[in-house]
Amino acid sequence: MGNIYYIVLVCCFFMCGPILSDYTYKIKYFDVLIDHFTFTNNATYKMRYLVNDSYWDPDNNAPIFFYTGNEGDITLFAQNTGFVWEIASEFRALIVFAEHRYYGTSMPFGNNSFSDIKQLGYLTSLQALSDYVDLISYLKYKHKHCPVIAFGGSYGGMLAAWMRMKYPRAITGSIASSAPIWQFTGLTPCGAFNRVLTSAFKLSSKKCAKNIRKSWDVINQITNTDDGKKWLSDSWRLCSPIKNQENITSLKNYLIDVYGNLAMVNYPYPSNFLAPLPANPVSEVCKELNKNVDGKQLLITLFKAVSIYFNYTGTATCLNTDLSYTDQLGIKGWNFQSCTEMVMPMCADGKNDMFEPYDWKINEVSDQCYKQFKVRPIVNAAVKLYNGKHIESASNIIFSNGLLDPWSSGGVLKNVSDKTIAILLPDSAHHLDLRSSNDADPVSVKEARNYYRDVISQWIHDPGRNI
Amino acid sequence: MGNIYYIVLVCCFFMCGPILSDYTYKIKYFDVLIDHFTFTNNATYKMRYLVNDSYWDPDNNAPIFFYTGNEGDITLFAQNTGFVWEIASEFRALIVFAEHRYYGTSMPFGNNSFSDIKQLGYLTSLQALSDYVDLISYLKYKHKHCPVIAFGGSYGGMLAAWMRMKYPRAITGSIASSAPIWQFTGLTPCGAFNRVLTSAFKLSSKKCAKNIRKSWDVINQITNTDDGKKWLSDSWRLCSPIKNQENITSLKNYLIDVYGNLAMVNYPYPSNFLAPLPANPVSEVCKELNKNVDGKQLLITLFKAVSIYFNYTGTATCLNTDLSYTDQLGIKGWNFQSCTEMVMPMCADGKNDMFEPYDWKINEVSDQCYKQFKVRPIVNAAVKLYNGKHIESASNIIFSNGLLDPWSSGGVLKNVSDKTIAILLPDSAHHLDLRSSNDADPVSVKEARNYYRDVISQWIHDPGRNI
Repeated sequence: MGNIYYIVLVCCFFMCGPILSDYTYKIKYFDVLIDHFTFTNNATYKMRYLVNDSYWDPDNNAPIFFYTGNEGDITLFAQNTGFVWEIASEFRALIVFAEHRYYGTSMPFGNNSFSDIKQLGYLTSLQALSDYVDLISYLKYKHKHCPVIAFGGSYGGMLAAWMRMKYPRAITGSIASSAPIWQFTGLTPCGAFNRVLTSAFKLSSKKCAKNIRKSWDVINQITNTDDGKKWLSDSWRLCSPIKNQENITSLKNYLIDVYGNLAMVNYPYPSNFLAPLPANPVSEVCKELNKNVDGKQLLITLFKAVSIYFNYTGTATCLNTDLSYTDQLGIKGWNFQSCTEMVMPMCADGKNDMFEPYDWKINEVSDQCYKQFKVRPIVNAAVKLYNGKHIESASNIIFSNGLLDPWSSGGVLKNVSDKTIAILLPDSAHHLDLRSSNDADPVSVKEARNYYRDVISQWIHDPGRNI
Repeated sequence: MGNIYYIVLVCCFFMCGPILSDYTYKIKYFDVLIDHFTFTNNATYKMRYLVNDSYWDPDNNAPIFFYTGNEGDITLFAQNTGFVWEIASEFRALIVFAEHRYYGTSMPFGNNSFSDIKQLGYLTSLQALSDYVDLISYLKYKHKHCPVIAFGGSYGGMLAAWMRMKYPRAITGSIASSAPIWQFTGLTPCGAFNRVLTSAFKLSSKKCAKNIRKSWDVINQITNTDDGKKWLSDSWRLCSPIKNQENITSLKNYLIDVYGNLAMVNYPYPSNFLAPLPANPVSEVCKELNKNVDGKQLLITLFKAVSIYFNYTGTATCLNTDLSYTDQLGIKGWNFQSCTEMVMPMCADGKNDMFEPYDWKINEVSDQCYKQFKVRPIVNAAVKLYNGKHIESASNIIFSNGLLDPWSSGGVLKNVSDKTIAILLPDSAHHLDLRSSNDADPVSVKEARNYYRDVISQWIHDPGRNI
């Protein structure tokens, strides 16, 4: 399970149904330095951003709502961060969605951006934040006192929070949803993510979590023989039959990813993230697994459960264990970030969680990273850069976390001060609060959104922020 | 006067007399990344630092006193920042003086460090701060909760302040003396430096400042003819006689530098900075210039005055206008920093100051920088990076400024909050407060040092800082 550290901070914004007509934007490009922190070259690249100025009233102190794009195509975030669109007209805001370098079409070296470390090495969070600050300066050129509110979910939420911490001059306040800024060595135990993930499944059904925990041994036993490998490959309709230990590991990693994804997108209404899903998908999966089953029968039941994730529409002809995420997320870019500064330890003990026990060994991670990218992780990079738990001096940040969301394990769950607030959403999965309103939303999420409105209004009208 | 933007944030620590025996240290080296902000290469260099652990009592929460080295050989700062040494024993502190990259012996590319922009481009303040954070992490390895207090004067003071703002996890508090963090475009008028400088001369004698103001025209008139050039070259015993307009400009730039240096090192006791100087050197210079003189007589008087600066010992055989600073300061490195992110506008109007009027034109500066380094300034770089006047969220910083010091023009002269304090020292020149105690020190400086002691003690004993 060595590649568990690649687990993607996915941004599960992808609603079913057509894009609402309000969510329209112009696609623009902004020339920005590839390297903000040395003077060894002054090359620039074209950063993509999306903008809607139909509501904006800059002469009356109306804000810019600035989405700090994360690890994927920015159009997906723009189409699926309904909250920002919904409140833009009442604030007369300019809406901007900025694309993170090395994702979508914002490729500093075009098709060669991932060629080798000489090109790829400029993919860092601080460089991306600096891109955003420059874009904001440009947008504020004519209205330099214009307040700017940052929004972000998941890794985008981390960026929104860090943006306010690092560049308070550029940003008046930040709504950082499901932002695991403390999912790093020394700040959060490596098993916390899987414990929260397991608790989300237990909440649906304790038996479900137990069956999943049991399943790892069964998979190991059955795939111990060639006949068993064939049986599992056929029963699970695998696109590529299991042939060796590596394939078995891949299959198990796929399952781990799927359980994580299900917990993240465990929304109370149907959504379409990596695949179409029903409302409350964890409950749906656990309905299948809420039985006393063992051996092959357990695996057959598990396949039915997993089918809800990869084949809810019934159109998949086989199960491809290489594809647990949409290709609209930049997995390769995130893998690189996980191998450099976003080194998030993950482990399991099989007791407090429903997984096969596995350690997180930095040496193994480092070797894999070197093999893939010719780079080795700097374990303390993010803590050094963003000050770990020493964020007492931060202000005007709201950290929200859904307690159904495994990433809440690395989030800010207590108020840091009266200016840096933690919001807990008991019935919410991964950044549900930033999505469009839905009748099925829990009351806590509806209330949180009203609170955000009030706070944003305070931030905008506090003259201390607009010096 | 085009090269006025090169004016050096000199660090006038260089006392007369032998080094006190307490000021002893081990010279050490620490491997640190040349580039902290990309992954394009993982090369390191050997950063020099000086350490004295003879007082340190780390098991009893004793602090590290960390001097954030500035634009020069670190041994000079260590030998001449007496305040840190004087209070180290009472705090049982570890004393560390860290050398700034590209100065002293801390050359990332050895003798090739200044060869071209590919090597020199890593000379930035943020890279240097990141060096310091890594060194602190290393020093704290065994005592990770050990409080660290940063000290710095002038550009080193800017670094001490920015260190606390950018890396509050690494640094508990900062004493930032004579740190002109606002000496940038949009924050401070370009004429402010020369106005304060002039006021320091006026305080000694209004006639002195008037004579200096008059002198520029006289120099221009006299050097208008070949005879005049020869006369001035002979009268002033110039090492290289004036031949052309460029030489005249150099001479005037030298004078501007000298007046600035005199104001900075206007200490109440004899000191030895760029050259040995008497106590209150501005008064000494102005004693010469406190006469009604015109024409050639004015220039002869001016030469006598300037001789106090370049030839106080009477051993100089000629006046070399290329040397207004000690070679222990890294002028070339600072010129580069002035050409990139430390772009400090300076101008004069000849009315509110004693200088020949000159504009500050970014285009001209940029062209000179490109000619010298193949680099162009990023005017807003420091403001973007360090948030300009938006430092409300800073904490545990003391900004001290002497009002005789021209650099106070760009300093923080009012309290930012109850945690970020401004100290004004009416009778003090450039970071006098960080120097060794002297009977001639003004009471305000003595009181300030006692206040620093109290505040440092509070910072160390505030458990909130030691999470």
